[in-house]
Amino acid sequence: MAISESVFRHMEKLVGRNFVTRNKEDLLCYSYDATGQSCLPDAVIFPDTEAQVAQIMKLAWENHLPVIPRGSGSGMTGGAVPIQGGLVVATSRMNKILDIDQENFTATVEPGVIVSHLHTAVEACGLFYPPDPASAAVCTIGGNVGECAGGPRAVKYGVTREYVLGLRAVLPCGDIIRTGVSTAKGVAGYDLTRLIVGSEGTLALVTRIVLKLLPKPECVATLAVCFDDMYTAARAVSGIMRLAVIPRCVEYLDAASLELVKDHLRFGLPRQARALLILEVDGDAGAVKVQADLITGFCKKAGALDVRMAKDPGEATTLWEARKALSPILYKIANQKINEDIVVPISRIPDMVARIEQIQQKSGLTIVSFGHAGDGNIHCNIMYDKQNASQATQAKKAVDQLFEATIALGGTITGEHGVGLTKMAYLSLEIGPVEQDIMKKIKAVFDPRQILNPGKIFS
Amino acid sequence: MAISESVFRHMEKLVGRNFVTRNKEDLLCYSYDATGQSCLPDAVIFPDTEAQVAQIMKLAWENHLPVIPRGSGSGMTGGAVPIQGGLVVATSRMNKILDIDQENFTATVEPGVIVSHLHTAVEACGLFYPPDPASAAVCTIGGNVGECAGGPRAVKYGVTREYVLGLRAVLPCGDIIRTGVSTAKGVAGYDLTRLIVGSEGTLALVTRIVLKLLPKPECVATLAVCFDDMYTAARAVSGIMRLAVIPRCVEYLDAASLELVKDHLRFGLPRQARALLILEVDGDAGAVKVQADLITGFCKKAGALDVRMAKDPGEATTLWEARKALSPILYKIANQKINEDIVVPISRIPDMVARIEQIQQKSGLTIVSFGHAGDGNIHCNIMYDKQNASQATQAKKAVDQLFEATIALGGTITGEHGVGLTKMAYLSLEIGPVEQDIMKKIKAVFDPRQILNPGKIFS
Repeated sequence: MAISESVFRHMEKLVGRNFVTRNKEDLLCYSYDATGQSCLPDAVIFPDTEAQVAQIMKLAWENHLPVIPRGSGSGMTGGAVPIQGGLVVATSRMNKILDIDQENFTATVEPGVIVSHLHTAVEACGLFYPPDPASAAVCTIGGNVGECAGGPRAVKYGVTREYVLGLRAVLPCGDIIRTGVSTAKGVAGYDLTRLIVGSEGTLALVTRIVLKLLPKPECVATLAVCFDDMYTAARAVSGIMRLAVIPRCVEYLDAASLELVKDHLRFGLPRQARALLILEVDGDAGAVKVQADLITGFCKKAGALDVRMAKDPGEATTLWEARKALSPILYKIANQKINEDIVVPISRIPDMVARIEQIQQKSGLTIVSFGHAGDGNIHCNIMYDKQNASQATQAKKAVDQLFEATIALGGTITGEHGVGLTKMAYLSLEIGPVEQDIMKKIKAVFDPRQILNPGKIFS
Repeated sequence: MAISESVFRHMEKLVGRNFVTRNKEDLLCYSYDATGQSCLPDAVIFPDTEAQVAQIMKLAWENHLPVIPRGSGSGMTGGAVPIQGGLVVATSRMNKILDIDQENFTATVEPGVIVSHLHTAVEACGLFYPPDPASAAVCTIGGNVGECAGGPRAVKYGVTREYVLGLRAVLPCGDIIRTGVSTAKGVAGYDLTRLIVGSEGTLALVTRIVLKLLPKPECVATLAVCFDDMYTAARAVSGIMRLAVIPRCVEYLDAASLELVKDHLRFGLPRQARALLILEVDGDAGAVKVQADLITGFCKKAGALDVRMAKDPGEATTLWEARKALSPILYKIANQKINEDIVVPISRIPDMVARIEQIQQKSGLTIVSFGHAGDGNIHCNIMYDKQNASQATQAKKAVDQLFEATIALGGTITGEHGVGLTKMAYLSLEIGPVEQDIMKKIKAVFDPRQILNPGKIFS
């Protein structure tokens, strides 16, 4: 749907001529996300304040114009792709950390704040914001709220949902709402805060977020543990989780992942290594030593080839850089990937690994798996050549089989990436018609005109 | 609204004649909760299975009959009081722990399970379910889900919301829904799970709960720390929370509370003690020692009169029994209490303590305060003689002033007890008309006939 000249002029008046565009080259930059799917919007607008967001929404409401909220466009399921055209509201200028309250362990931020900037700012005050998606260096906290982002540290600390105390947001009709609290607890009325968290920008456009912070752990120990097969590694994960210690991260990389990042690792891996666990424990110095020793002892008994503790923060950083480089490096293997973030019960990880192996063999495609093993959350990357029709078909089949296996093992089709466009067709595998009907009616409560990020989640 | 003879006979057929009643003496037992408010239902039914619950709801739906879900009736805000009469659905027979999955750290339970039974059962497997409301010995997990219960350990471990992975529930129309997951993570579709948690039994009748468990901490250290005034204690709380350690509990008892329970404490308190903090740290033995030493050192510097560590589990239990006895013991002072569970930012606890003191002086009533200081969650008990009209008026005024002060300090009127009946008139202090309108529309999505726990939360 095209934006009329008068509506566009109105938008220029609202934010200034420099902060709204309909130039093709600009539109292209706001047409896609990390899935590679793309669709041109009709315009992109860059509001600076909540009041501007409210006025923009009101204008869109009156003109039945689709509005697509957008952080950094690093989403993995097409959530920010403007598939019906319309107006992209980019939050890049709303990027202020408004307050870090050191006495009450909260941060109040605008949605466009880059997650790693938040990490740096709160850590400088001796505080800690745990959620750390691999894209933290580029993704926004608004996007994290929209998707309920996780990351490696979710094993111990939970996901974004657990850290959002309260929100301010603009409804599709332009009304501003406040949800939740600024305190550690609060249960007045229905939990609109957690309803909006993870709603993929379809219920309200978040303009301000009150986050819970923790004291920064005094020490962190990072362990790299190698195994000669994935099954032993997967069984070790379950055992580690039973120790009286909860590691803050239990990441795993399969053989294909290791092959991709081996040059990034400062220390060499044993030649026969076919799986790597990256484990972290944190706390005060004494506790960290006790915990690291406990895990080291356990891993050795559980058949690890090698357990190595990072000697210094630099070595730990290198290890994480290798892990975080995985997603972009994947394009070395093929020009297209389908990245799925399935979750299975921890005890079923070995079964899931076996199923992935079978699916790989049957499809003839390379599947690279890594992810947050401590949560049972596996990022399965199905690699194919998008110019090759037969590979594309195989890839689609592989996804079908992957999701069927996940559900059969008692899992979920998305742990932290959301449904967006790419999982819409699979939502009914997990969510029944009565439940979807309730969700759609809730969408209609917030957005009776269906203008906010339309065409996502529900088919 | 009376229940017709034919509907009553139908209910007898559904559950058996022994499990539905309309005898006055039975009705009386299901007419009240811990507020002392009461109203007779027309009948009480005791289903045994989810299928029975679904059939009961369908019958109520067809007959526009109010349905009031009820656990143990230990709620603090009138949530289970059948103010429009109707049918109480008591969950006491649906009290089975269906599964404790030791590999995946989950428990699957029916709503009528007593919380302390769950604690005992999972701890016998080396696992841990953190939420521990003071009423754990009597309250049900279904009630905890309804109110999003907290308790002392919420400081480190969070509230019920953080432990509910998935639900099965019956909608007012009788349809059965499944929400959430059985895994550590999951974000498919809107978060119906957390919408139902804390909805005070107004959206759906929960029939099965999948809970997240943790490994049981190896050791716990319990500290009793005395101060000669509440302000020093309140300031110490904020300081403790800044240590790199997160205590699992930071409870406080004011002078009036101490006076009430001093006979319950095995060890004597210094004569000049006017405030007591009960602190707990947990983890493996090494970590607990380090943490307890850190906190002890800090408290001494922060002006504590005395820091004592429980010598054995028995001593710790006595301390907790004293704390948990507080709510019932209060009736020693007066025949009526209004128990409010306000929350303020941690740094504002000293201000709130001062305001409570002022309100007490102005009202001439005794106000006893204790609660979860680490969360800023204060249970303020305004004591009065219900036969004394002037005291009743003063008590009502004191509540008004208490809530106004709470909101002015950036707090919330309910941290864990819910709104129910007693806070309905105050909800608008915290939640605006647009937000309440959304909540009411969500209620209508679930319950268009307004039959499930009607007349609660919203006025």
